Amino acid sequence: MLEKVSDIGEFGLIRRINDLVNRDGLRSERLSLGIGDDTASFLPRPGYELLVTCDSMVEGRHYLPQHISFMDLGRRAMTINISDIGAMGGTPLYALISLGLRAEMFVRDVEEIYRGFIAELNPFGASIIGGNLTRSGNGMFIDITLLGEVEQGKLVRRSGAKPGDAILVTGYPGQAAAGLRLLLHTPNDASLARHPLVTIYNIPPHRAHLGKAIAQTGFATAMIDTSDGFLGDLGHICEESGVGAELFKDKIPVSEGIYDAARILHRDPHDFFLGESDDYEMVITCHPQHVALLRSIAEKCCAAPLTEVGRITGTAPGITLLLPDGERHPVKSLSWDHFRSAKDPAE
Amino acid sequence: MLEKVSDIGEFGLIRRINDLVNRDGLRSERLSLGIGDDTASFLPRPGYELLVTCDSMVEGRHYLPQHISFMDLGRRAMTINISDIGAMGGTPLYALISLGLRAEMFVRDVEEIYRGFIAELNPFGASIIGGNLTRSGNGMFIDITLLGEVEQGKLVRRSGAKPGDAILVTGYPGQAAAGLRLLLHTPNDASLARHPLVTIYNIPPHRAHLGKAIAQTGFATAMIDTSDGFLGDLGHICEESGVGAELFKDKIPVSEGIYDAARILHRDPHDFFLGESDDYEMVITCHPQHVALLRSIAEKCCAAPLTEVGRITGTAPGITLLLPDGERHPVKSLSWDHFRSAKDPAE
Repeated sequence: MLEKVSDIGEFGLIRRINDLVNRDGLRSERLSLGIGDDTASFLPRPGYELLVTCDSMVEGRHYLPQHISFMDLGRRAMTINISDIGAMGGTPLYALISLGLRAEMFVRDVEEIYRGFIAELNPFGASIIGGNLTRSGNGMFIDITLLGEVEQGKLVRRSGAKPGDAILVTGYPGQAAAGLRLLLHTPNDASLARHPLVTIYNIPPHRAHLGKAIAQTGFATAMIDTSDGFLGDLGHICEESGVGAELFKDKIPVSEGIYDAARILHRDPHDFFLGESDDYEMVITCHPQHVALLRSIAEKCCAAPLTEVGRITGTAPGITLLLPDGERHPVKSLSWDHFRSAKDPAE
Repeated sequence: MLEKVSDIGEFGLIRRINDLVNRDGLRSERLSLGIGDDTASFLPRPGYELLVTCDSMVEGRHYLPQHISFMDLGRRAMTINISDIGAMGGTPLYALISLGLRAEMFVRDVEEIYRGFIAELNPFGASIIGGNLTRSGNGMFIDITLLGEVEQGKLVRRSGAKPGDAILVTGYPGQAAAGLRLLLHTPNDASLARHPLVTIYNIPPHRAHLGKAIAQTGFATAMIDTSDGFLGDLGHICEESGVGAELFKDKIPVSEGIYDAARILHRDPHDFFLGESDDYEMVITCHPQHVALLRSIAEKCCAAPLTEVGRITGTAPGITLLLPDGERHPVKSLSWDHFRSAKDPAE
């Protein structure tokens, strides 16, 4: 009989998680207290700013439980937080995990979620230092707070983009969204579990290593991850920087996988890039003379391409799409909105 | 028509919250980035350790929505986190708020929750620096991560209690639980809304100022807040310190309010102290020669009494209750357990 959370109780589960974290996770020398007291404590590194972010995943809203393993669920929940630290140019340090669980959940599955967290944290030497377990209503939730650090003066904000700056993007935003659309299109097709786009939807790559390397150069004027979709996040940069932007439609990176999915789904392949979220790529702006350097860093640091897709403009406050024939289309920034969008997978 | 969250959307709500936080909240000089980027960032103070804790409140599990105002809900959710920072001897600095909301919630009510957070943070000069908003399933949740600081070397753990140490407790643990029991006993009695024990249940006091003052003396060997109930939390101290404890039943502080509630509910008034949670008082251990000093600090710092209720023992691993006639009863540590206990208000 598989053990349930209700069999071992909250304190039994805390012990089990603590054992797992101590066995498989890493522990920083600067950590003075981890799991097991009223709070965790650590000694910050002199000359570094601390970064802190939190992000939740709610069952049925942010993931489809029938299509993702517990380990991958843990990896994905941690990735979306690591991505935020990376988009500032920082390095992840410590995570606090707040879980809302059903009492009838298997302990083994909770441990798998933690293995997923640890798999994403270990490459940074980062560790789980605390959290909270509670019983949820009818759906699980995972809420992670991630702390990171960045050398003082190296932090990259959303608000520094300047007219004339190049707009760069990593990888192929839209792949995760295309994976989700394929799952929703034929939910009973078991072969989709191994589809590359579905894998990207379930465990999207983050660009935190690249974010840190680029921040070190001091040449990025703004950075953001694409958690609200490319247009949504470029919109955040424009709003915070007080600028507009032009995108070259023929420069938008569209992968073979997106073309294939677009054919199956009868969609314009560029739509996945522009309007959808669920990828954790990065949008970076910099002076045009620094593009070559940043691209060479991206080549060395991560396998994904860094593509120049547009320019920051000073006059127009909005975002314009330039077609190859010279036509100009104003585009709306369509950020993922949890309370208004009809895109929730549960709906 | 009152505005709903779905009317203004996620980004509209973020703007509204941001405005409220900027208007009513405080901002530390060490904060370099607050709400509105991928992460918040701040410069830690040299010579201080950072403390970090998180705690959730789930509708129906941790509070009764029909008996608490939105402002008080915010105050209570923040208080339980402030209490954890205080139990280490620290000062709260920065909060991140993760909310799971129903789309049909009124914006005004969400703002009231934030007013509650701010009301508890402002006395410490602490501020809300980030968070996450998401749509929840059928129940709201509030998950707070609170960062604090403590002077290096002043942190008080659970694990330092020594045989022979006095066991002290602030206030009257059990009052909040008695308030909850009264609400459950006559849920339709509207006059209970103004009952002092119900007020304590809804917005329990914390002892963070006292925790800091006591930590400064260096004389507390262990501290913990009573979030798992007095016996549960004394049990945590015993377990982490590798010691046992004796309690003097006739020394247990029982307020007039608890005596009254016990009569109405046909309960032993001491049971509220020993077995129930929902209060955020503090358990402190120290060498007997320091008791008088700590009590004088408590008198100056907070109106509540600091009562000596027992001794740490070295031999027996458990907790024993000593009756006035000399009889000895071993007592079980009955921690609040979210997955096993039948004490959830929703059940």
